[in-house]
Formats: sequence, C-alpha cells, structure tokens
Amino acid sequence: MSDQKGRARDFGVCFQGAPGPFNAVTDVPGIKIGHHQLVAGEDVRTGVTAIVIDAPDAASGVPAALFSFNGTGEMTGSHLIEEIGVLFGPVLTTGTLNVGAARDGALQWARRHVTDADRRFSRILPVVAETFDGRLHDAWGLHLKPEHALAALEAARGGAVEEGAVGGGTGMIAFGFKGGIGTASRLVRFGEGTFSVGVLAQCNYGRREELTICGVPVGRLIADLKPEGIDAGDTPESASLIVIVATDAPLDAVGLKRLARRAALGMGRTGVTGDAGSGDIFLAISTAHRVTLGGETLNAMAVVPPLSLDPFSEATVQAVEEALINALFAGETMRGQNGALVYGLPRERAAQLIASGGR
Amino acid sequence: MSDQKGRARDFGVCFQGAPGPFNAVTDVPGIKIGHHQLVAGEDVRTGVTAIVIDAPDAASGVPAALFSFNGTGEMTGSHLIEEIGVLFGPVLTTGTLNVGAARDGALQWARRHVTDADRRFSRILPVVAETFDGRLHDAWGLHLKPEHALAALEAARGGAVEEGAVGGGTGMIAFGFKGGIGTASRLVRFGEGTFSVGVLAQCNYGRREELTICGVPVGRLIADLKPEGIDAGDTPESASLIVIVATDAPLDAVGLKRLARRAALGMGRTGVTGDAGSGDIFLAISTAHRVTLGGETLNAMAVVPPLSLDPFSEATVQAVEEALINALFAGETMRGQNGALVYGLPRERAAQLIASGGR
Amino acid sequence: MSDQKGRARDFGVCFQGAPGPFNAVTDVPGIKIGHHQLVAGEDVRTGVTAIVIDAPDAASGVPAALFSFNGTGEMTGSHLIEEIGVLFGPVLTTGTLNVGAARDGALQWARRHVTDADRRFSRILPVVAETFDGRLHDAWGLHLKPEHALAALEAARGGAVEEGAVGGGTGMIAFGFKGGIGTASRLVRFGEGTFSVGVLAQCNYGRREELTICGVPVGRLIADLKPEGIDAGDTPESASLIVIVATDAPLDAVGLKRLARRAALGMGRTGVTGDAGSGDIFLAISTAHRVTLGGETLNAMAVVPPLSLDPFSEATVQAVEEALINALFAGETMRGQNGALVYGLPRERAAQLIASGGR
Amino acid sequence: MSDQKGRARDFGVCFQGAPGPFNAVTDVPGIKIGHHQLVAGEDVRTGVTAIVIDAPDAASGVPAALFSFNGTGEMTGSHLIEEIGVLFGPVLTTGTLNVGAARDGALQWARRHVTDADRRFSRILPVVAETFDGRLHDAWGLHLKPEHALAALEAARGGAVEEGAVGGGTGMIAFGFKGGIGTASRLVRFGEGTFSVGVLAQCNYGRREELTICGVPVGRLIADLKPEGIDAGDTPESASLIVIVATDAPLDAVGLKRLARRAALGMGRTGVTGDAGSGDIFLAISTAHRVTLGGETLNAMAVVPPLSLDPFSEATVQAVEEALINALFAGETMRGQNGALVYGLPRERAAQLIASGGR
Repeated sequence: MSDQKGRARDFGVCFQGAPGPFNAVTDVPGIKIGHHQLVAGEDVRTGVTAIVIDAPDAASGVPAALFSFNGTGEMTGSHLIEEIGVLFGPVLTTGTLNVGAARDGALQWARRHVTDADRRFSRILPVVAETFDGRLHDAWGLHLKPEHALAALEAARGGAVEEGAVGGGTGMIAFGFKGGIGTASRLVRFGEGTFSVGVLAQCNYGRREELTICGVPVGRLIADLKPEGIDAGDTPESASLIVIVATDAPLDAVGLKRLARRAALGMGRTGVTGDAGSGDIFLAISTAHRVTLGGETLNAMAVVPPLSLDPFSEATVQAVEEALINALFAGETMRGQNGALVYGLPRERAAQLIASGGR
Repeated sequence: MSDQKGRARDFGVCFQGAPGPFNAVTDVPGIKIGHHQLVAGEDVRTGVTAIVIDAPDAASGVPAALFSFNGTGEMTGSHLIEEIGVLFGPVLTTGTLNVGAARDGALQWARRHVTDADRRFSRILPVVAETFDGRLHDAWGLHLKPEHALAALEAARGGAVEEGAVGGGTGMIAFGFKGGIGTASRLVRFGEGTFSVGVLAQCNYGRREELTICGVPVGRLIADLKPEGIDAGDTPESASLIVIVATDAPLDAVGLKRLARRAALGMGRTGVTGDAGSGDIFLAISTAHRVTLGGETLNAMAVVPPLSLDPFSEATVQAVEEALINALFAGETMRGQNGALVYGLPRERAAQLIASGGR
Repeated sequence: MSDQKGRARDFGVCFQGAPGPFNAVTDVPGIKIGHHQLVAGEDVRTGVTAIVIDAPDAASGVPAALFSFNGTGEMTGSHLIEEIGVLFGPVLTTGTLNVGAARDGALQWARRHVTDADRRFSRILPVVAETFDGRLHDAWGLHLKPEHALAALEAARGGAVEEGAVGGGTGMIAFGFKGGIGTASRLVRFGEGTFSVGVLAQCNYGRREELTICGVPVGRLIADLKPEGIDAGDTPESASLIVIVATDAPLDAVGLKRLARRAALGMGRTGVTGDAGSGDIFLAISTAHRVTLGGETLNAMAVVPPLSLDPFSEATVQAVEEALINALFAGETMRGQNGALVYGLPRERAAQLIASGGR
Repeated sequence: MSDQKGRARDFGVCFQGAPGPFNAVTDVPGIKIGHHQLVAGEDVRTGVTAIVIDAPDAASGVPAALFSFNGTGEMTGSHLIEEIGVLFGPVLTTGTLNVGAARDGALQWARRHVTDADRRFSRILPVVAETFDGRLHDAWGLHLKPEHALAALEAARGGAVEEGAVGGGTGMIAFGFKGGIGTASRLVRFGEGTFSVGVLAQCNYGRREELTICGVPVGRLIADLKPEGIDAGDTPESASLIVIVATDAPLDAVGLKRLARRAALGMGRTGVTGDAGSGDIFLAISTAHRVTLGGETLNAMAVVPPLSLDPFSEATVQAVEEALINALFAGETMRGQNGALVYGLPRERAAQLIASGGR
C-alpha cells in the first residue's frame, strides 16, 4: 500500500504502440474531460465524468457508432447514434442509479450551450452511460443531482486526465481491486498525416482470477487483497465496462462501428471472458467531421478506405488495453458503505510480476 | 367539435380481425395500464403512462424484443432487452424531457416492489420511452417528477384503457391532430388455444397529408383544422411513435423481435413513409413465460414454431393500425403553451370519408 | 385473360409521386438491367436478372446497405455489405436453387471485367439474392448454369426494363397470381438538384386475400383465378420478396440502411403482414459516390443530412409500392411443371376495382 | 521441420480449462466432422469440411446464432439463422471460390437425406462459410465440385478430428505459417450436469508479428520462416477466420449469440487486432433442443438463465483459443501454385518459447 503513485508505464509495464503527449483521450484535439465526484462520510462514493467535444458550433454532431459486447448495462441516447451515425453533445459516465440525474444535468447544459433552435436532438437525447457503484457507495441514496453533472460538464478541459477514483469512476471496482477511470492514447501515421486514437474507460468489471496484464496472469498471482465487507449477494453482474474511443482520423459511422467492436479485443487482453452480467458497451467517435443534422447543405466527408483500417484498429486495441490497466494502477484503497473495503492494485508487486513474466 | 366521443369502431370504421373484450392491451392477461397526467394553466400538458406486468414475482422477467424502425428517439433499458431477450419490470412512456424523472420514479417503484435482492437488473435499468410533447407543453420546465411516474405505476389496472390526452399521451400531436395514447387488441386462435395480442401506442407522429385510414387518404381530405400557434421552428423531427405489443402467446425473444418488426407495417397502414426525425421504436413482450435471471434452474419455455407466426403477425399489424387510429379518435382539441392550438380529429367527418372511400 | 398488356399506370392506377422517364430502376444513371431466362417444355421456368452498376472502374464500390425484414431467404454477400457499407460489382436475383450457379457466373464475369488485382472482394464475394421458383419450375433439376448468369450480366443495359416473367422473375408467383420482376422510379428534388430513386423487385410473395392496391382490397374481391395444380405441400413459406433500391442521391451506408428499412412500408402497402416464411430482404445503393477499398487516398463523400431524408423516404415507399404492383400487372398466365397453372392478374378487372374503390 | 507431429498440448502448451475426451468439437454429442480435400500437382490445394448434426430427424433444426466480428467474408444461410435463430442441416467450410459448388453439394445431400417435404429451409438455404485459399491454391480453377462437398458430408463421423491441411483448411495460411482446421473442446459443469463446448475453426488469418500464444509474442520471436513466392499483391485482406462453436448445453439463440460474440475474445488471445479484410464470422449452435419449423406443436426448451452463462463463456473463449493454436500446431510446410511455400509452425521451437515466457 506504500506504493508510489504512477501510471502503468511509470512502473515499467510495456505496452505496444506510441502514445500521444498525455497518453490520454485528450490527445485527440477537441476532446475535453471533466470529473465531478461526491465523497462524503462512509457511504457516499460516486460521481460523474463528462466527455465534451469542444467545437465552435456545439450543436453539430460528429460521426459515431457503438458496439454492445454485452448489453447488460445502459447507454442512453444509443438509438439515435445507431440510427444516424452521429453523436450530438457530450457523453456522461456515472453510477447506474445516477443516470436520470446525469441526463437532466446534460439537458441543462445543452440548454445553456446549444443555441440553434431547430437542432433538437443535440439537446434532448443525452448520452449517459453507467456502471454500478452500489457496493462501495449508497447508490440508492440518489446523492448525485443534475447540478453535479453540470459541474463535470463545465469543468471539462484538455491536457492530462485524472484517473482512478474520480468522476464516474469514484466508487468502481475492477478485478476485485479499486477500479475507476482510465485513459490512454496512440498516435497513428496514415498517409501524410498523424492521427490520435484516445480512449476513456470507466472500469467496474472483471474477476480477480482472470486479470491478465501483458500476458501475465497477475490476478491468479495476487490472491490476497480481496474486497472485504462486500455484500455476499454481490454477484459478478454488478460489473460493467464503458469505453469511449475518440479519434481525429477521418472515419465515418461505418468505420467507427468497426473500431468500437475492436475495443472488445482490448478488453479481452485483460483476461476476461465476457461476464454475463457485465454491461460492456463501447462508443467510438471521430472529430474529423462535423455533421449537420438537417437542411439542404450536404455533409462533406473524406473517409479512410474500408480496408485501410488496420493502423486504427491496432491503436484502438492497444489504447483500450492500456487505459484499462491504467485504471487499475490509479486505484487507491477505498473504504465505503457498511464497512466495505477495496484495495488498490499493489503497483510495485504487480509490476514485478509483469516484468518477470509471472515467475 | 361537437362530435360525440367514441372509438373508431363506434364510428363504423372497419378493421380486420377480432378484438378482445376491451379491444385494449389489457386483454392480455397480466397487463395493467396506469396513467398520470399534469394539466395546469396554459402550459403544463404532460404525463406518463405505465405498462405493468402483473405477476406474483415482479422481479422475474418476460421474453421481450424491440425493433427500432427509426431510432431518433429514446427507449432506455434497450441494451439489456437486446442482450438477454428479457424485460424486467414495467415500461413507462412519457415526454422526452421527462425521461430522467420517469426513470427515477421507476427506480423508486422497483425498490418498493422488487424484493429479491440479487435480481438487480429488474431494479436498476428501467425502461422509459418517449415522444416529444414540447409543442403544446412547457417541456423545458421539467414539471414531471419521479413521484408522478410512481403514481402512474401504482395506478396501473386492467380493464378498459383510457385513450387520447392521458398519461404520456397528454401533450402529443399526430398528423396535425391531437394525438396521444391508443390501444387495441386481437384474438388469435392457435392450436387448441386462443391468445391475445394487445397494443399500446403513444402517438406523436405523422404529417397531415399522409394520414390514411383503412386505405382512405383522410389527411388530404381534411386540409383544414391545422395546428395553430405552433412554433415555426417546429419541424417533423418533433414526431415519434412508441408501440408496445404484448401477447400471452408463447413466443420467445426471437419471435417477439419479428412481431416488433411487423409493427412497422401497422404504422405504415396509417400512410406514413418514415419521417427522418420520428423516433419510431417498438417493443414486444410475451407474458407466457417467466424468465429467471440467474441460478442453475433452467428457464422452461414452449415456443410457437418459427414458420407458424403468421396469425400473430396479422394480429400485430391489425392491432397496431387500430391502436394508432384509436389514438386519433380519442383526441380532443387542446390549447397549450404560447397559444398553441391543436384540433381533435373531427370524428364524424373522418368516419364519413372513410365510409365513402374518400369520395 | 384477353387483357391488353400494359403497366399499372396504363390502366389508370394512381400512384403518388413523379416517376422518371422509364419509371424504372434504370432511371438512376449508371444502373443497367439484364435478364436471362430458361423456359422450355413443361417444367423449365427459371432465370436470372442482373443489376449492373456501370462504371469506368468496375472494381470500385458504391455505398450500400441492406435490411432484412424477414430473413427466411438468401442474399449472398450480405456480410461484406453490412461490414463496410459498400457494394462491389453486380447483384443477381434468381431462383433459390440457382444461387450457387449464379454466384459462379458472377465470379466469371468479375474475372473478365475486374482488372485491379488487389481489390479482391469485388470479385470473390458476389451478391446473389433469391426467391423460390420451385412451384412452376423444376427447381431441383438445377437447369440454370453459370453461363446463364453471365449472359444476364452481359445483356445488362439501360432504358426500359422488361417486367414480369423475365430473368429471375420467370417462375415466380405473387398473391396467387403470376409474379416476377417489377420496377418503378421516382424523381426527387433536393437542394438545387433532381435525383432519382429506382426500384427493382423480384416478387414471389403475398397471399391472395391480403392483396391491396391503392388501398383497395383487390385480393379479396378477386377470389377466383387461384393457382391450380400446385402441390398441396406448398405453403406460404415458399414466398419471398427481393427489393433493390438504387439512387443517385448522395447517401452513405447509414442513410441507405434507412431507405432499405422504408422499403418495408412500400411492401406493406400491398397488404401483407409479413409472412413468417417469406424471405423479404431489401438492398439499397447509391451511385453518387465511388468508394475505393484500400490505399491511403481518402474516399470523399458529400451526404444528405440525416434529418433531410424525407423526400427520399417517400420516393422509396412509393417506388417500391408501384414496382410490386407493376410486377403483378406484367404477369401473364403461365403453365409449368406437373400441370401447375398460375393466372396473370386480370388487369382490366383489377383496374376497375381500384378505380371504383372496391365497390 | 523435423518436428514430431502433435497437438499443442502434446508440446506442453498450457491452456485453461478441462477438455473433453477428444479435445474436439466432436466431444459434443451429435456433432460429426467430415473432410474432403483435393491436393494434386503443384497448384491444387483445396477442400471442404462438413459439420453434420447427427439426428434421427435431420430436417429439424437446432438453436443457432452468429456474430460477425468483421464481415469481409461469407457465410451463406446467415439471414435465416439471424431471423429464426435456428440452423437446419449441415455447415460447410471451404475456399472462397468454392462456395457455389459446396452449396450445390449441400443441396444434393439435403435432397438425399431430408425427407420431410414441407420443411424446405432445411434443404434449400445451405450454410457455407469460407476463407480464401488462393495463395497456395489455384482458386480460380474452380476445382472443387459439388460431389466433393457431398463426399465430405457423407464422410462425417465422430471421434478424433484431423486438423491442419485437411478439408476446407487444406490451402490456408495463418500468421504466415501453414494454417487450416483446428479444434478443441471444454467440459462445463452446470447444475447437476456436465456439458461440452466444442469448437471447429478454419484458420486463414493473422499477421506474423501479432501471433501470441498463452501470452507469449511467439510471432515476433520467430521472424524467419516467412512465406515465399506469395504474390506481392497478396494483402492482409486475404485472411479470414471461421469458427463454429457447438454445445450440448441448453441454450437458445439469444444465449448462443452471446457465445458467438465471445469467440472474438478467444481469437483475440492469439494476438490479432482485427484485420480490416479478415472475414471473421462465428457461428454457435446448441444440440440440446430440436426445433420444428412449422405446425402447431410448440417447441419445448429449457434454457440456461441469462446471468448464468459464465461457465459457457469461459469454455468458449478457452476452446476457441486452443482450436486456433491447434490449427497452427497441425500445420506442415506446404508448397503450392507458382512456387508458393508456406512453412509449418516450428512446434518444438514455439513450445520452448512459450515455456520460457519468451525469454
């Protein structure tokens, strides 16, 4: 527990590919992240994270697609994304029982920032995704209010992204360790340009014995430090994983759906086999194009050819993998409601196991 | 305006097929409907409708599937239904901006009624669908609160179902006439038994010139009685149609998805061509089986063979068509915010047009 | 039976919307149609129809999407279209048991015409759709060979399109009348331009009692002229409907999927409720863009905004409806294997029923 | 090259989970496998593999579902499986250009074995999946004929399954080594019973540098033994992976779709990131229920509850991983058309790398 803080790379964990300057989703130009958390007393451990697409015309959308690897979870606004391949406005991630409040906060934010009256979908069908924080947190207390979501949205900024028990990740658990927010990015050279693929993940998934890092079965090798005081009725279905993949590469909804599907391979690299109750839902967006909702002016796009997707697929798998591991490395031991105790990943110990190949 | 009240059949409109005793979704055993509406002053015209599956063990689910004909709308809880083919708990329909509040109301209801601790999805991923009532109603005032959704849920009962400007249908507009809630049912003989297919629809869709009833272009023939005082910025994308198809026929999620898709043909019979901004989302459920979420006891089912679906498909198309027309026949002229005025369908006049084949 | 030949419009049947010069899928620039049929003795009644996208670079693809309203049928090549939103090469429609031979014919054609070596999907994953002609035709005799598909492909041309018992439609039955190929088109004004939406359908679907034309229940009113000598074991699942919607409007795969879904509403206008065994699969393509499969040159597109789809949706529904009715009007009484007899729609009689509103 | 033959386990490669007696898909009762290959001269290297569901009533179907991880490939018959959640008749895997011939062979087999006249889908919509063998093999020579598919079907039997360059796997390449057929199985205890999950894969996928076995980057460590004489125009899109997951666990189509999706995690364990041109299509079936297509007798099922899927998911991921590695271990160096040469995985060397953790 005396581990120094640091991200997985700081502990020598080797990942494939070249990250961007912040190794964060914010390496994608125009992507801003805001966290707001409520941590109080013994039983309030929740929050909300906002992904804001910064644009002069916030009402316009960007190409988007999603993939539900295991849909035992919620991402509101999915029908609109599936139908027109466009995301309007921000994305919020939070605890499951906060979805209604976060959605209302997004409405307020949209009303404040979206001025183009006839582009209504940008205002009234907010995207809110969730994982369940009701093990450490008094979820049924409904502590999170719309103003907290509004605060996360207004706090969104670029640069380094705080990870771990912040924002929507505050009360999360992953692999029986403290989970939460993780992020990473990759640079991709394509044609004459360099693009970024960035990932933000809210991690509340995974069983200890499955945890694999860089091919090493770390979870089986750290059999201690199990959660304490968690209700016996708490079954694996309490788990979930939300992943947002953002890129400035010129992809349309068809290409982004393919990237979203590949996020599952990044998740798989952490050892899981797809828990039946883990709501694993992945969203991919591109900031390379602005899409106007209506009118007679065509939306111009220039799109990566379908068989040239590979560098972006690699970047997605790699960045997802690292973001998920980063969430674990950012975890600090937390106590919560009813005496619940979840340990943070012992970073040094994990790093040594990884370095030694588990020997 | 001096039209007597009555449903479409009372005015001699001929539909195909044999309805159940109430010609309502409540003809399906175990289906209960509750409405709660807020109508106050000039600008509050909203509400919420609850579809409750009455069961001794409310935590258990029923087979379910959905079809998004045009997903520019919202139905929360969809990911779970798509993933496991099961619906837990009630369904709420309301105005778009009320979704968060209604969802919170559903959480409260679930907490009150669902006692089996480990069946969490029945409690925390509520299904709330919406259509936009912000033309007659001050939607941004967020007047609907969780307790109103709770009231609709607690009010749910069998028997005749009130139609028109009630519950979630309160502020809705369809084909430039007053829209709202409509319902209908069909009896289906299959094998040795008789089954019911019931439909509940929240109608906020359709352009006047497209309105077709029993093959007659009624909308083109009633060119007057257009809405007044509706914001010019109000474009067709304000429209949406939510349909719930319920049956006690033994169908699983695979068969129910097929029925949900066929609801589109019922919608099509009213003349529409699928407005780009109309969130037309259809949910189908069967009350014939109870599905347990976990454990090692298998869920027993007996299912209609895949090529024997036709009588249920016919019933679905017919009941959807009639429910949508019933919503129109139940419409009464309504005034709302900012002087908005929407006429109810002139029933006698429409009936005469239909009877004469539009001549 | 002494009816003069003619299309539905020639008999005064009124449809909505403005057709293009040929009222055919070939009104879409670049779309060519070729038929090849085998009619011999008493029992050979089959054929194949080719939809060729005429382009200087036949290896390049066009945006495409499909919707399976009821997937009890076959359209090979669907996985590729779904994955990358692009159609390469031609589309063939034929009898169910001919799919393998037609596919091999398409391979031969592709080898002859596609010279760009590395664009392999354009050559090796042909799109062949089918409906079952085994009632009039000795389907199990496997009379159709790859060279017949090749002949249809080489015969493809623009201009007027022959309808009825030609090409893939040769042995088809619809609503208990002679079915087959039908086509229609609509002109759409959008922005400064005029675009075409064209439909080609292979009709082998529908039960007599459901047949509706322009809102009139023609099928119930023509209870005679039922098929004779058709095997009693022939059940509705022998039916199917293939629709290809082509347009030169600038739509991408996301928009085209929406059009493909709306084809179901056009089908619905003919009165059907979605037979459980009718393989109703719809494909939509746009010739406005060429999509290159690989390389680093981006594919440039300019796309109709998502909420501006309505005129194209209307055109699709209308053109599908008319194409399906045209297939019926083109039907001539046919005798086939084992004494089977299927009557052509009595055109004058049907037209009079429609004109009189069924009175 | 002097490696002794043997499966991965024989070389000490450690996998998770407990395999069945044959560690093959045939451990699932009722599943039989038949191979037929054509290897002649320098340029014929192709074949076909048949998965036959042995049943007294071959016309009846079994629950089935598919997941297309990357649909740049073909699996005919997919629409029917997606629509009704049932597979009728056998599955064939072969080379891409053989699909038509294999389909015709399946028709002949069905005609011979399916006697129930009215269950037509079992006869006329065969399931044929493919990967491209045109690098070692003269694919455009169309050497495979329907009778070869028929031979594979008639040869189907239980017991040990031959792997590697047999049947449909004959000319395949994986990770730049000789690919082909691989199989594996897992035993799953659930409730009072023990069930099998078996996998058959046709492997023609993967780039050398990505190959990972049990977490060890074997592909980066064996940089030699690259294919020789393969056309420079041969790009990664020539790759593909077909996986069939079979189980006797009582799952319906909804559960099987979830298993099919989890096959992607098994694929991911071999290191790939989802090549844009690799047609990775996965089919899952359960032999626990027989499904009748029509009639009024309900299909009885008893299904694993949705949140109890985990042991089957684990088994699927593990068996897919092992089947894919088995295909590599079964590979023998092969020469083919135009001097092409593909090496078999050097088994001893690979095994030592794996054992040492890549050090």
